[in-house]
Parts: sequence; structure tokens; C-alpha cells
Amino acid sequence: MYVAIIGYGGVGSGVAELFTKNHDNIVKRSTQAQLELKYILDVRDFTGDPNEHLFVKDFETILNDAEIGIVVETIGGIHPAYDYTLAALKAGKSVVTSNKELVATKGYELLKMADSMNVNYLFEASVGGGIPIIRPITQCLAANEINEVAGILNGTTNFILTKMIAEGMSFETALALAQENGYAEKDPTADVEGHDASRKVCILAALCFGKHVYPEEVYTEGISKVTLEDVEYARDWGGVIKLIGRAARVDKDRISAMVSPAFVPKNSQLASVDDVFNGILVRGDAIGDVVFYGRGAGKMPTASAVVADVIDCAKHVERKKMFGWEDSDKNYVVNYLDVETALYIRAVADEPSTAIKDAEKAFGSVKTLTREGAPANEIAFVTPRAPEKALRSKLEKMQGIKILSSIRITEY
Amino acid sequence: MYVAIIGYGGVGSGVAELFTKNHDNIVKRSTQAQLELKYILDVRDFTGDPNEHLFVKDFETILNDAEIGIVVETIGGIHPAYDYTLAALKAGKSVVTSNKELVATKGYELLKMADSMNVNYLFEASVGGGIPIIRPITQCLAANEINEVAGILNGTTNFILTKMIAEGMSFETALALAQENGYAEKDPTADVEGHDASRKVCILAALCFGKHVYPEEVYTEGISKVTLEDVEYARDWGGVIKLIGRAARVDKDRISAMVSPAFVPKNSQLASVDDVFNGILVRGDAIGDVVFYGRGAGKMPTASAVVADVIDCAKHVERKKMFGWEDSDKNYVVNYLDVETALYIRAVADEPSTAIKDAEKAFGSVKTLTREGAPANEIAFVTPRAPEKALRSKLEKMQGIKILSSIRITEY
Repeated sequence: MYVAIIGYGGVGSGVAELFTKNHDNIVKRSTQAQLELKYILDVRDFTGDPNEHLFVKDFETILNDAEIGIVVETIGGIHPAYDYTLAALKAGKSVVTSNKELVATKGYELLKMADSMNVNYLFEASVGGGIPIIRPITQCLAANEINEVAGILNGTTNFILTKMIAEGMSFETALALAQENGYAEKDPTADVEGHDASRKVCILAALCFGKHVYPEEVYTEGISKVTLEDVEYARDWGGVIKLIGRAARVDKDRISAMVSPAFVPKNSQLASVDDVFNGILVRGDAIGDVVFYGRGAGKMPTASAVVADVIDCAKHVERKKMFGWEDSDKNYVVNYLDVETALYIRAVADEPSTAIKDAEKAFGSVKTLTREGAPANEIAFVTPRAPEKALRSKLEKMQGIKILSSIRITEY
Repeated sequence: MYVAIIGYGGVGSGVAELFTKNHDNIVKRSTQAQLELKYILDVRDFTGDPNEHLFVKDFETILNDAEIGIVVETIGGIHPAYDYTLAALKAGKSVVTSNKELVATKGYELLKMADSMNVNYLFEASVGGGIPIIRPITQCLAANEINEVAGILNGTTNFILTKMIAEGMSFETALALAQENGYAEKDPTADVEGHDASRKVCILAALCFGKHVYPEEVYTEGISKVTLEDVEYARDWGGVIKLIGRAARVDKDRISAMVSPAFVPKNSQLASVDDVFNGILVRGDAIGDVVFYGRGAGKMPTASAVVADVIDCAKHVERKKMFGWEDSDKNYVVNYLDVETALYIRAVADEPSTAIKDAEKAFGSVKTLTREGAPANEIAFVTPRAPEKALRSKLEKMQGIKILSSIRITEY
């Protein structure tokens, strides 16, 4: 059996490298007599690359070669990754990918095509990099009804927040450092504004709850507005600020799905997930909470997950793995304002003590927070839990304050 | 397809309960048209139990019923669990178990029998309770060469150590509390002396390195000698004491395998695994470190893993999962004294300052530790890393000290 890689960037070249490095054991574990890399597709030239002889420029070469049973798509983005994937599946080839954007956007359609052609479309690397998460959810927790999934799904923003929390670095300085270290792109929007995490929430929600969730349905807030003042108040509250992606069952027919900064209690397993690491918590009715931790990005960790999927495709060549989800309708994901939460609020007040009294009156009670060196007119407090809409409506009615920050509070 | 449970204790009754509770989804995920519980074998009477009509007293009833495709062995211990398992596999039935003692002792033989009969012998629940660990190692990390596995594998001892660390409770009081809460048996030896963790190390080592490791080959030290003084010195060092089970590749043909208390650095993911929770770290050449966290024991978490295996057996009824390991020879596990480590030492000294100078001379340098209220003649220090035999030999030569505690230091 032969494999082709399309897209020879960081992940694609990592796949080729790992495939060569651990070749004998990979073939043994695939249960195939033979499993070889035959083509690499990339528009660029890689003269002098150890795999130079495998490069092709035309996808048709791969598509029309009946010996190619598995295509590794590591191009990223929607086009041409989508077109190549669909064509490969239609031609009866299994496809393995790390492309979270494509799975989050077209996963339902591509899985349906894979199903109808009796081949596999696998994407363990699309969430949590190399961390085993998709198989554990679909197989190991198969006896559970999963009620919630939540995690630190983006290494770049976690690196920035860790620098802010541990070293008091400003957001801007930490972002610049992340770019210097190669953890953040030149245009960091997709990471910093939460879009990358949002795509991963789509995939996790589909796996946990059985229906496709589209990126535009996930309410998404990034970390660019998180300040060092908020970090200090979170510490006083007893926790840290993390960018949390989460999805939860609301009732039989509906779920919530959201990405936003959140206060996480210090004793939570997610609170100690630092730097570029990822951590994903799954809550099942029998197992309780389980947490998966590791490198959520990077060339070799991601390649580790891709090659594991290649091995699985090779093992399941005669019999497809049962794996997929249904499409969803418009009302499947509830509005984020209908989700229950507690809120941390930081504001400037004309009369701080009056404002706190007003807040206590409006919310029943609030937990006030303090930090060293706060201006005399700054207040900070945490509300009780209620649907966010109700909290926002009460905040809007409060007189003589200007809200500077509001951050959700998690319970795990 | 029909299922029989043999042994209706905590785990067995949890399996029956979960099987009923999430029945429709379990059947759906099994890809079978039908998956029903048909028999429960137990010598005791369960009059009034919701499954009362399923009870049988004779294993032959199960063995001779061709409709039974899967046997769930939740008896525990070696006999008659071993005999029933072997007979069921020989009769062409798949077997699922949570019985770590049996897998650690007879795993190689039973897997070989399963293989020859083209059925499955699965035991996800035998390590880490409900935490997904066996599939992640064998499938998700299949592209990696695994170099090390280490973890907090026993909830009872972790509960006791957590109480000692967080509340300054003595070992004896914490053990009594664990017994009161049902976390420790009346005879707590298997947990407290590390035998339970040792069996789990055998299974993890076999999965990670491909050869059977027998319990008697794992050097095993429990926590009964850990004192509150040691807990305080560990804090001064910058960490906590945990009971760590671990196995590591030494070279192409040999591994190390051990259970003992260990100093774990505060920033390690294992340091924050508290109470009855388990955490398992796997170190692969491509993925780096991954950690799996969750409930390592308990009726429903363990049942969650058992039922996931039942689903997997049902899915693989026509085609066996490739899964197994080789037997090992006498030299496979190296002597623990040949393993490199650093050691924490607590001692009373005739002349404390002379003793520290002697230690510095003997080891090149040592890190001295302090605690409040220590007697004037108590010393504590951490040695550099070296094969344990060399460290012990130097300690034996030191004059005028009496060693009270020595605890290994981990690097993760």
C-alpha cells in the first residue's frame, strides 16, 4: 500500500520525517506487508530534500495512481484542500488530515462521501495536535453520554496568557515574543481572536454530541482585550485567565458552543496547562471528568497524530471504521446569551462604594475583588450564576459606572 | 449478540447498570443489530436486584451457550478468573476485564490464546480505571517510539499522600480516613505497599515496550514509611511526594520498571493530580509528553472502560483487533540499583555540619534542605543523579549518620 502527502509545509514534512524515522514499526503496526511513501505534492521546489525524488506538481498523478490508498492532506485552508480531499475520497482513497478549518467547515459532507465510498476520513491531528483525543472520545468513552467538553485548544494564546500571568508581561510584548519564537503568525488574528480554537470546538462538539457545528455558530471572543489588571483580579479570585473553548449539552436537542477568555480556578487541571501546551477536559456521565494534556501544535507532535491515522487507515482497508456525525439545523446551537454563567466585571465608578452597593442590590450578592495599586475609582466583582442575558441586562441598568472588562467564569 | 458478566461486585454491577442506562447508544455504537446482557454469574444471592432474572450459578451455562459472544470478567484475583477466562477464550468468546492482577500475571498467555482463537481479550479498565490509556498508547501513539511511561496509578495511596501534604495529617490518620470513605480495604496492603500500582506498571510496560513484565520483576516500595517530615522537605525542595509507577527503555533490549514514592516537581502535571485521581504520563519520540488524567477507580468510571471494551469486541466480531505482546526473558528488566536517579536523604548526624561537608565531598555537591522545627541533629539533602548503586555505596561509607528516609527524585 502506498501513501501520498499533499502540502509539504511544517506538518507535511514532519509526516515524511516521522514516516522514515520509525518506518519498520509503523509498517508492522499497520498490519500491511508494505506501507511506503510514493508521492509528495507541492507547488514549491525542494531541491536537495531527502525526499526530492517523490515530488510531483500535478494532483492528477496521485489521483490516477491506483496504488495510492491513503492521501495525507496537510495543505491547510479550504481551497484547494477541499477539492483534493473530495476527489481523493471519490476515487476510493482514504484521506488523513490535520486541517481543522476544513473539517470544521466541510466535515459532515466529507465524512458522508467517505462513508459512501467505504473509505476513511480521519483527522486526529486537527484538535490538540498530537494529543490523543478523537479516538478516546469516540471509542474509549463510547459507553458514556458526554455532557460537556472544554479545553485550552490554542497554544499561541496560551503562551501569551502564561507570559502575562507568570511574568506580568503586557499582551503586546507577549504577542511579539510569541512571534519571535515562531509560535504566532505574522498576522496573528486566527489565533489571538479565537478562530482557531473555534474550529476545534466545532470538531469536538460534533464528536461528543453527534451533529455538525459550523464555525459561525460558535460565539467567539479572543484574548486581545485581556489586561494585566484582569490577570491580577483573577489571581485575587483564586485562579488564572485562560482562553477556553467549550461545548455542552443543553437539552436533548440543543447544545451550547463558545470560545472566550475565562477565569479558571487554580485547582482545576486546566489551570496548570501552561505555555504552548493544550489540555482538554471531557465530562461523561459514567467516567466523570477526564483530562488530556500535551503539545497541541508543532511539527513532530502533529505528525505523530497524522501518522497514527495513516496506520489506522492501513489497518482498516477492508473494513471502514464507523465514524461520522449528522448535519444540524439552525436551532441546534443556542445563543450564548442564554447560557448560564457567572461574570467577572471590572469598571470605573463615579462613586465606588455606591456602585458596589448597587451591584449587590442588583445581583443579590457579589464577590468583590481587589488588587494592589488600583486607582481609587476602579471596582471589580464577580456576579452569581445566571443566564448571561439577565446579567448583562442588570449591568446595563447600573448607573455611574463604565465597564472596562467582563470575563466569564468556568466551573472546572 | 449476547453478553455475560462473571462476578457481580462493584465493577460487575456497575457494568450492568451502565449497560442498562445508556443501552440504546451502546447498541448503536457497537454496530450490532442487538447487544443484550444474558447472564450474570455470582455465587451470592441477589434477590430483588433489577437483574435478578439473569443470575446463574454455573459457569458451564455461559460457556456452553453459543449465543454468548462476550464475557465480562469482573471477579478479580487469579483463580477462578484465570480458568474461566481461558475456557471462554478457548470456546471462541471474547473476554473483557478490569482484572489487573490477572493481566499482569497471565496476560501474555491469555492474549496468545485470544489470538489463536481469533477473538479479543481487552482490559482498558485494568489501568487508570476509566481513563482512556490502553487505546491511546497502542493506536494514537502508534507512530511513536515510546521511551518512558510514569504515573500516579493508585487512588488510595494518592488520597493518603494528598491528606498528608495538604492537611498535615499523619499516614496512620489518613489511612484510617481512606478506610472510612471506602477508598481503602480493611487490609490495605495491596494499595499501601504498592502491589496494585506494580501490576499496572507491568501492563503499561508491556503495551509501551512490547514484552510481558511480571509483577515480581518490578521493584516495589509503598508509602507506609513516608513521614510528614519528608513531606515538608519535599516542599522546601519545590515539590510533592507521590507514589510513582514507571517503566523506561534502557536500551534496545532492556527496560527499567519500578514503583516507589518520589519527589515530583511542583510544576509537573503529575504534581497536581490529587485525592483519588490518577494521572499517567507517556513520553514518545515524536509527541513529547502527554498526560491522561481522571478517576482511576470507582464503580462507574471503571464500568465506563469495561463497556467501551464490550462495544469494541462487538464491533470487531469478524475481525480481531491486532493487539498483544511477546514474552520476555530474565534479563529484560534491569536491576533497580542500576537505574540512574537522584536521592533525597534525611538523617540524624552526630555532627550535622561535618556530615553535610562529608556528603558534599562524597557526591561532589548536594542540595541541602531545611524545615521549621527540625531537631538540631537532623540533616536533609538531595544528591546529584547517578546509578542508585553508586549513591547507596557512598551513603554507606558516610560516618556518624543514621539514615531515616531516602526517596527517589523524578524529572517529570
